[in-house]
Amino acid sequence: MIHQISVIAFDADDTLWVNEPYFQETEAKFCGLLEDYLPKHTASQELFKTEMANLDLYGYGIKAYILSMLETVLRITGNTGSPEIMHKVIQYGQEMLNKPIELLDGVEDVLKALSGHYRLVVATKGDLLDQERKLKKSGLEQYFHHIEIMSDKKEKDYHKLLKNLDCAPAEFLMMGNSLKSDVIPVLGIGGHAIHIPYHTTWEHERIDYNVEDPKFYKVDSIREILRYLQK
Amino acid sequence: MIHQISVIAFDADDTLWVNEPYFQETEAKFCGLLEDYLPKHTASQELFKTEMANLDLYGYGIKAYILSMLETVLRITGNTGSPEIMHKVIQYGQEMLNKPIELLDGVEDVLKALSGHYRLVVATKGDLLDQERKLKKSGLEQYFHHIEIMSDKKEKDYHKLLKNLDCAPAEFLMMGNSLKSDVIPVLGIGGHAIHIPYHTTWEHERIDYNVEDPKFYKVDSIREILRYLQK
Repeated sequence: MIHQISVIAFDADDTLWVNEPYFQETEAKFCGLLEDYLPKHTASQELFKTEMANLDLYGYGIKAYILSMLETVLRITGNTGSPEIMHKVIQYGQEMLNKPIELLDGVEDVLKALSGHYRLVVATKGDLLDQERKLKKSGLEQYFHHIEIMSDKKEKDYHKLLKNLDCAPAEFLMMGNSLKSDVIPVLGIGGHAIHIPYHTTWEHERIDYNVEDPKFYKVDSIREILRYLQK
Repeated sequence: MIHQISVIAFDADDTLWVNEPYFQETEAKFCGLLEDYLPKHTASQELFKTEMANLDLYGYGIKAYILSMLETVLRITGNTGSPEIMHKVIQYGQEMLNKPIELLDGVEDVLKALSGHYRLVVATKGDLLDQERKLKKSGLEQYFHHIEIMSDKKEKDYHKLLKNLDCAPAEFLMMGNSLKSDVIPVLGIGGHAIHIPYHTTWEHERIDYNVEDPKFYKVDSIREILRYLQK
């Protein structure tokens, strides 16, 4: 059991609902558009290179992803590609923004069980408007006391979040699918963290790291967190 | 004098620093790129049409603006335009994101004078990362107790902000250059508002509205607000 927790924060993408598979689906279509120019695997690497080069400037989220796809098309085709390809890329991006929300198994049951016992918070990276829209579509808004859309998830960002929430690190529990963003920085500032791996992870979030910390827990499914929390 | 204020919130773009002129400068270059296809005025109207059509999907900010420029190029050129035009548009957008911050006259003096007497807050629309970056570049971060990047500035958004700040509407004063976003919704929820018009306003923010409210004030320059506030 984890004691003295007052705030539980949930990552959103691939923790509450499906996200990365939509990016992978779009990436596959994107590589298909460029198959006259490059093998699929190479197109995919070129896109990732563009995304990383633009990360400081654009940040996370679907709009940044569309812009990086468009820039990659221009680079790969040496500015000679058909505008039709660009048109399709914008269309794929808009389709992503309009995707319905598919909740992960157990999410709503867990939120119901915890609601009223803790202050529940969403702490997620990504586009401000897009994440707000997804939360609204998810039907989960009612369970949350506060929504924090973060431009990054480093220790300083969690410090700011805890200051906003007026919560001590020892009373804070974060859970999510990314060791790099949801676990390590939270443990670093003295909070608790539960890792709930998702079957697929964006390359940028993948790290090889062996966490050893008494405030760290790992579960296979969100349902299992109740074991550590339920009163 | 305005009494019993505890939180003063400042809009950022065209209230603390120059913004709209950079959009207009980019728009002029954008229309120049398309002069083989359309008269400048028409290109500008087409761009605005795209922006409005995308507003619900993309929200505010420079990334949304770049995507709307690109989409407009594809529509105007009937998918036959040179990819070089698309390349230039992305470049213009990145230049906007990298612009230095030019503070408006009097801003820092006013913040210095108010600092310590009130909780000062930034309340702005736009891209999360971009607005955070501008604030950092501005050197003004030290004066602010809280930064709120909002996906919109309607009454419900101000309600949420005040809840986060734990501040009653009657103790809240908002100031900014947009009647539509910074004044009317704030008066609507019972707060105070000061309008500081800027010499130019984005078409989407322009309204014809005669405000009559005892909690409303209008000044020509940010320096004048001290008249209503200084102890």
